[in-house]
Amino acid sequence: MDPSAEALTFPPSYAIQLEPHLPPLQPTSSSGSSGGSPLPTRPFVTLTFATSLDSSLALAPGVRTVLSGAESKAMTHYLRSRHAAICVGVGTAVADDPGLNCRLSSPPGQPAHHPRPVVIDPHCRWDFTAEAKVLQLARAGRGLAPFVVTAVREPPEEKLQLLEGCGGRFIYVAAEPGAPEPASGDGAGSTRLRWADVLAAVKREGLDSIMIEGGGYVINSLLVAPDSELIDSVIITIAPTWLGQGGVVVSPPRTIDADGKPTAPLRLTNVSWHPLGEDVVMCGKILR
Amino acid sequence: MDPSAEALTFPPSYAIQLEPHLPPLQPTSSSGSSGGSPLPTRPFVTLTFATSLDSSLALAPGVRTVLSGAESKAMTHYLRSRHAAICVGVGTAVADDPGLNCRLSSPPGQPAHHPRPVVIDPHCRWDFTAEAKVLQLARAGRGLAPFVVTAVREPPEEKLQLLEGCGGRFIYVAAEPGAPEPASGDGAGSTRLRWADVLAAVKREGLDSIMIEGGGYVINSLLVAPDSELIDSVIITIAPTWLGQGGVVVSPPRTIDADGKPTAPLRLTNVSWHPLGEDVVMCGKILR
Ligand SMILES: NC(=O)c1ccc[n+]([C@@H]2O[C@H](COP(=O)([O-])OP(=O)(O)OC[C@H]3O[C@@H](n4cnc5c(N)ncnc54)[C@H](OP(=O)(O)O)[C@@H]3O)[C@@H](O)[C@H]2O)c1
Ligand SMILES: NC(=O)c1ccc[n+]([C@@H]2O[C@H](COP(=O)([O-])OP(=O)(O)OC[C@H]3O[C@@H](n4cnc5c(N)ncnc54)[C@H](OP(=O)(O)O)[C@@H]3O)[C@@H](O)[C@H]2O)c1
Repeated sequence: MDPSAEALTFPPSYAIQLEPHLPPLQPTSSSGSSGGSPLPTRPFVTLTFATSLDSSLALAPGVRTVLSGAESKAMTHYLRSRHAAICVGVGTAVADDPGLNCRLSSPPGQPAHHPRPVVIDPHCRWDFTAEAKVLQLARAGRGLAPFVVTAVREPPEEKLQLLEGCGGRFIYVAAEPGAPEPASGDGAGSTRLRWADVLAAVKREGLDSIMIEGGGYVINSLLVAPDSELIDSVIITIAPTWLGQGGVVVSPPRTIDADGKPTAPLRLTNVSWHPLGEDVVMCGKILR
Repeated sequence: MDPSAEALTFPPSYAIQLEPHLPPLQPTSSSGSSGGSPLPTRPFVTLTFATSLDSSLALAPGVRTVLSGAESKAMTHYLRSRHAAICVGVGTAVADDPGLNCRLSSPPGQPAHHPRPVVIDPHCRWDFTAEAKVLQLARAGRGLAPFVVTAVREPPEEKLQLLEGCGGRFIYVAAEPGAPEPASGDGAGSTRLRWADVLAAVKREGLDSIMIEGGGYVINSLLVAPDSELIDSVIITIAPTWLGQGGVVVSPPRTIDADGKPTAPLRLTNVSWHPLGEDVVMCGKILR
């Protein structure tokens, strides 16, 4: 059997522990007009990923790395069932050809909830074909087609048709001021999108919650103040293994204090730890 | 009050969870001649340290870094009460001027158990004076004087007298074959000691258990096979903070398989996770 078709189950007793760290079951934007507090301009943001003890996401970009156990995998799919969208960078899309759907078995008669894949690809360098796993799953009704966030105003016609043919689309977000606007196929890295702009665009698509899964570049760029303030919840799985030097490492850039001394860039608060198989899951919030 | 004089307490309910990961309360060498199994040639080895989420021990060598909480600090001192010796590299001795004693409050009338500090200093570059904290504590009866493991055959007379004056000593261990034998004051890094030789020397001093605490060089060199097989127990505290790029990082060297592909250098087994304050403590064994 195709392993990507296998249905996963996640114990309700464990799911209950995660509940305080997840987006509200009733999205705020549908909560009516009472109260008068302004509508949020971004979705609920959960930063979630799995690392080794040495904070690696993978042995190297594109090297499939089994990190966490079966239980943690089921948890990831439970999180996918609880978010409107799932976000990865183009690096992950290119390296892993990920499915980005939800394989949690749903109650009989109830359709599965799949998150909307959101791929951040400022230069339109993701060279997908009809065979990309995420598009195959969308056509098969086992996932949703991706929204590709890009700074390229006119993405190639061929990609546009491929995406739109199965319900996906390109979402234009202007590059950070000062950065040149890229043309399709431009070299990677020359353009930065502001996270606030990306998240506002996601919200405008009606997506009320998003889990940001990786990879290294995406996570490290989000863990820099003030962008880190956009994170509502952090859920990290740690596996009891060392991947060794040279992996795809999560570690935000160094910060320094007024005297030029190094300081810890970020600390978490409201932390709880939940053993899961051989792994541990840490839930918390960024300390402001 | 001098904070290094403050007595710490560690709850017995938590200590019980650590018991399976600690050296036996009755050292094997004193267990008599029955059975006929050969006497161990090395002490029970516990590798133990505290890191950030991004696997850093410290913001930079010598920068005092508050990582783990009060409860975890008490645990470290509990571990010290349960080991005959405590080992750090000369990098830590120079950078931190550590006390390496046990500040756990002991039952009334019962003397505190202090571990024997073992400092690995192949080139005799630790420039301690009578004011070094570990020597002050030894003279005050609040700790033991260090054993300094070195490849220098004739350490400087002045240091020898300082050490021996309060019960410490130099322990000569021959450098790894092929490495030049250093003279005192030689540049750092030119000599490597074999861990098996260091541990055999520790055992010959009658020390049946040792906790290896750091720093980065010591830990990373021990996490390389076959030396990693010398580790009996691993106890790591993880604090919910990121220290950022450029810290003193625990991450063993990369290993590759027969096809030249990167592989995970080490995995743990028999793993258990124990939340402690805002931190988590992971106990396990190296998978062989
Ligand atoms: N263990 C886990 O939980 C997990 C989860 C996901 C991924 N991964 C691993 O992570 C690895 C890939 O990581 P990676 O760091 O190479 O790639 P990545 O973070 O997936 O993608 C990085 C690229 O995305 C674009 N990007 C992302 N945020 C941006 C922003 N704010 N502004 C502009 N561009 C932005 C940039 O594209 P340009 O280069 O075109 O500028 C950037 O180079 C893979 O090996 C994958 O397996 C692991
Ligand atoms: N968070 C924690 O739990 C924790 C615990 C301890 C230390 N730390 C931190 O760690 C940092 C210091 O780490 P570090 O990597 O700089 O120093 P280190 O590991 O303490 O000492 C490294 C030095 O010890 C000698 N050495 C150790 N093992 C050896 C071997 N097998 N053969 C030969 N020489 C050996 C070498 O001396 P030569 O250079 O002379 O060759 C080496 O450079 C400090 O900032 C300290 O605060 C943190």
